[in-house]
Amino acid sequence: MDASLIERFVAIVGERYALREEADIAPYVTERRGLWAGKTLLVLRPGTVDEVSEILKLATETGTPIVPQGGNTGLVGGQMPDQSGDEVVLSLSRFDKIRDLDLQSNTITVEAGVTLQRLRDAAEEAGKLFPLSLASQGTAQIGGNLSSNAGGTGVLAYGNTRDLCLGVEVVLPTGEVLDDLRKLKKDNTGYDLKNLFVGAEGTLGVITAAVMKLYPQPRGREIAWLGVRSPADALKLFGKASDRAGQSLTGFELMIHDSLEFVLRHVPDTAHPLSEPYPWYVLMEISSGRSADDARKLIEEILEEGFEDELVADGVLAESLTQAAALWNLREHMSEAQKPEGASIKHDVSVPVALIPQFIDEAWEAVKRLEPEARLVCFGHMGDGNLHYNISQPVETQLADFLARYREINDAVHEIVRAYNGSISAEHGIGRMKRDELIATAPAVATDLMRRVKKAFDPAGIMNPNKVI
Amino acid sequence: MDASLIERFVAIVGERYALREEADIAPYVTERRGLWAGKTLLVLRPGTVDEVSEILKLATETGTPIVPQGGNTGLVGGQMPDQSGDEVVLSLSRFDKIRDLDLQSNTITVEAGVTLQRLRDAAEEAGKLFPLSLASQGTAQIGGNLSSNAGGTGVLAYGNTRDLCLGVEVVLPTGEVLDDLRKLKKDNTGYDLKNLFVGAEGTLGVITAAVMKLYPQPRGREIAWLGVRSPADALKLFGKASDRAGQSLTGFELMIHDSLEFVLRHVPDTAHPLSEPYPWYVLMEISSGRSADDARKLIEEILEEGFEDELVADGVLAESLTQAAALWNLREHMSEAQKPEGASIKHDVSVPVALIPQFIDEAWEAVKRLEPEARLVCFGHMGDGNLHYNISQPVETQLADFLARYREINDAVHEIVRAYNGSISAEHGIGRMKRDELIATAPAVATDLMRRVKKAFDPAGIMNPNKVI
Repeated sequence: MDASLIERFVAIVGERYALREEADIAPYVTERRGLWAGKTLLVLRPGTVDEVSEILKLATETGTPIVPQGGNTGLVGGQMPDQSGDEVVLSLSRFDKIRDLDLQSNTITVEAGVTLQRLRDAAEEAGKLFPLSLASQGTAQIGGNLSSNAGGTGVLAYGNTRDLCLGVEVVLPTGEVLDDLRKLKKDNTGYDLKNLFVGAEGTLGVITAAVMKLYPQPRGREIAWLGVRSPADALKLFGKASDRAGQSLTGFELMIHDSLEFVLRHVPDTAHPLSEPYPWYVLMEISSGRSADDARKLIEEILEEGFEDELVADGVLAESLTQAAALWNLREHMSEAQKPEGASIKHDVSVPVALIPQFIDEAWEAVKRLEPEARLVCFGHMGDGNLHYNISQPVETQLADFLARYREINDAVHEIVRAYNGSISAEHGIGRMKRDELIATAPAVATDLMRRVKKAFDPAGIMNPNKVI
Repeated sequence: MDASLIERFVAIVGERYALREEADIAPYVTERRGLWAGKTLLVLRPGTVDEVSEILKLATETGTPIVPQGGNTGLVGGQMPDQSGDEVVLSLSRFDKIRDLDLQSNTITVEAGVTLQRLRDAAEEAGKLFPLSLASQGTAQIGGNLSSNAGGTGVLAYGNTRDLCLGVEVVLPTGEVLDDLRKLKKDNTGYDLKNLFVGAEGTLGVITAAVMKLYPQPRGREIAWLGVRSPADALKLFGKASDRAGQSLTGFELMIHDSLEFVLRHVPDTAHPLSEPYPWYVLMEISSGRSADDARKLIEEILEEGFEDELVADGVLAESLTQAAALWNLREHMSEAQKPEGASIKHDVSVPVALIPQFIDEAWEAVKRLEPEARLVCFGHMGDGNLHYNISQPVETQLADFLARYREINDAVHEIVRAYNGSISAEHGIGRMKRDELIATAPAVATDLMRRVKKAFDPAGIMNPNKVI
């Protein structure tokens, strides 16, 4: 990038919002796990749709690659510039307005840079629920959540970020603005453009605002921690719970014993919820729009059936908000608690729900063939068919030896995922991390169609190049 | 189309499944309302994906336009060839297999030509619910439902056809087959191609099969018919009902008195459910996964609140399945009961839910300015913001005089829809009927993107030309 081009970009947002000093730029080119460091000469922080439009127009005209960035919490490197220094980072963080809150239509219209936590808080203050919930919600921005179609624990009852979005405002690579900020649950007027931008990881345009759905705040909520003998039992329990509770079943997390063990070992102020260990656990959450009593009654009905059918070996119901938070806390620290145990080879996969028990076993056999002493740290959203199928470093093995098997173990697990007609990225996206694998393993017809879409929307190829496709 | 080209197409499916006689062709080029008669020399009824692929390949090679057709129940002419006789109709009716039923993953994999009724029945026999429900379900095929993203009364709790679909198998205009028949609730591996084909009305490719979601059969169901004083009261009641019931609120239909009046007048064996008339009615349905008692208790809680807050003027609860069916029957005949009352100018619109009362009034003022004696026959899915805002011919006005105002009245209503940021086709699609209006009134950026998608997927322009875009 030559100096005069940089000046033209700077002129659009003004000196104050164009970062050029290394120290200012640093937070935008490193991410918390240190996996995807990049380089850039310029971070732009536009404050209006017009400015974004001007930036993209100039980028298209000059062939300058643009990397849109939200809260920089993505897990696959989608928000990072490459090492060339030629890519300009476009931060959406100044798009921080809540434009509209419509309590009767149950919608909130927010700009892309609003953090997920702020969005959840704004909903709560208005007596509503915005159900998307992620460990990174204090930093993650809704624009990034949309671009990566974020998942999390709320998907079971409320769907992915895609399902929570009714309309978007997008600046196209040409600088044109697609204003589709509509609050409509039903609209059959032509192709579904919204869902192309959602999940495109910034490769088709820049989402600057969105209309998101709101839900009623539950009047009752109950949390149970259950010991189960096997994923097969957990699956049967899930079937019974969801038949009975429908959308009132707002959480059903499956966790192997070791994931809990690591949390108890490394996270302060945690305790085993049950008097003895079980091979697997389920965290079940029930929400009721009617009353606290109703939620209690419903979860008791489900547990009664679960005990009778011998699907639940032991269980405890949270008796206070504090206890409920403590149970969720165990689940939420599982990823983090793996760190002190050494390296971890992670898989964010989904398979048809019915095949989860079989998948867990078959993948584990494959991993053990490669690394007999590996430890399985498997936890995830059973009802969504989505598991974080993580392999922790064996106690007696050296880090380098374990990491040398990274690709092999990855391939072995993903191979089985594909045989099950599953997904190698259930909720984190493709970004840089899985691009080559996607291209190598997805049906050629699918990747070809994706390339055609990319070319149709971004003929100059300036939007987040070499990500996704 | 010259004779040798016809022979080449016929050779793909065999003589038996290529219709060339006028009598055989007739059912494919007329639809039940007689609005969209077309012409064709050839109807092809392929039986395998390979045959569809061969047909489209030949069509692309020779520039022959193809019109895919399901049950021929579409309301906007999307399934009809034009008058030229140059377009070949591709019927999916032989794609009638249920390929897979997975009770634990809650999915059913069906071919495009399976009728909606058969799909619903297959689910029911397996103890499950497929919630899509339409008046035309005995004839409509799931491929057509997907292509038009059909709506209906089940959308409130379960979503549109799009929301019920997990994966598709599609033959592209080139003859390539996209096999994306996956049973995954979560899959973030690249652009959302599925949702492009769903709702594309056969203009991007031919859907040959799909994985659809199943739900538990409710254990209890309650139906209430309520008299309300105004749409504003109905809206408040809807808010309270959905806060309390969440997804257990499986129906909330708003209907003006005249829609009921017409049914009572023209449909045999119908009776007014209440002892006196009210300006508006609500049909409310509650489903419970728990028990019949639970459904009863929930609807009683809602009605109690509704009466206390004076939102409900009078109401009746169905005391038997027969009574419940009779109440739904009133709602389902509203469209048909308009016919004996003369011509009808229909609008399938959606607006933000909060604006429904205001929209009804403002649109009615606009219509009355054009046709002071017109009769408003407004009914629809309040919770989806979707109204069938139909205008019936005034009693004293001649048919021709009324129909002469068609365009004017249409424009006036749609003008207000647009001012409310609504949709001029909430659930029926664009087809031929609304194509010109879509192009003339949608933002140029949106129609331009749609054209780019169309060109990227169907460069030869053979798929259902001059529909949608």
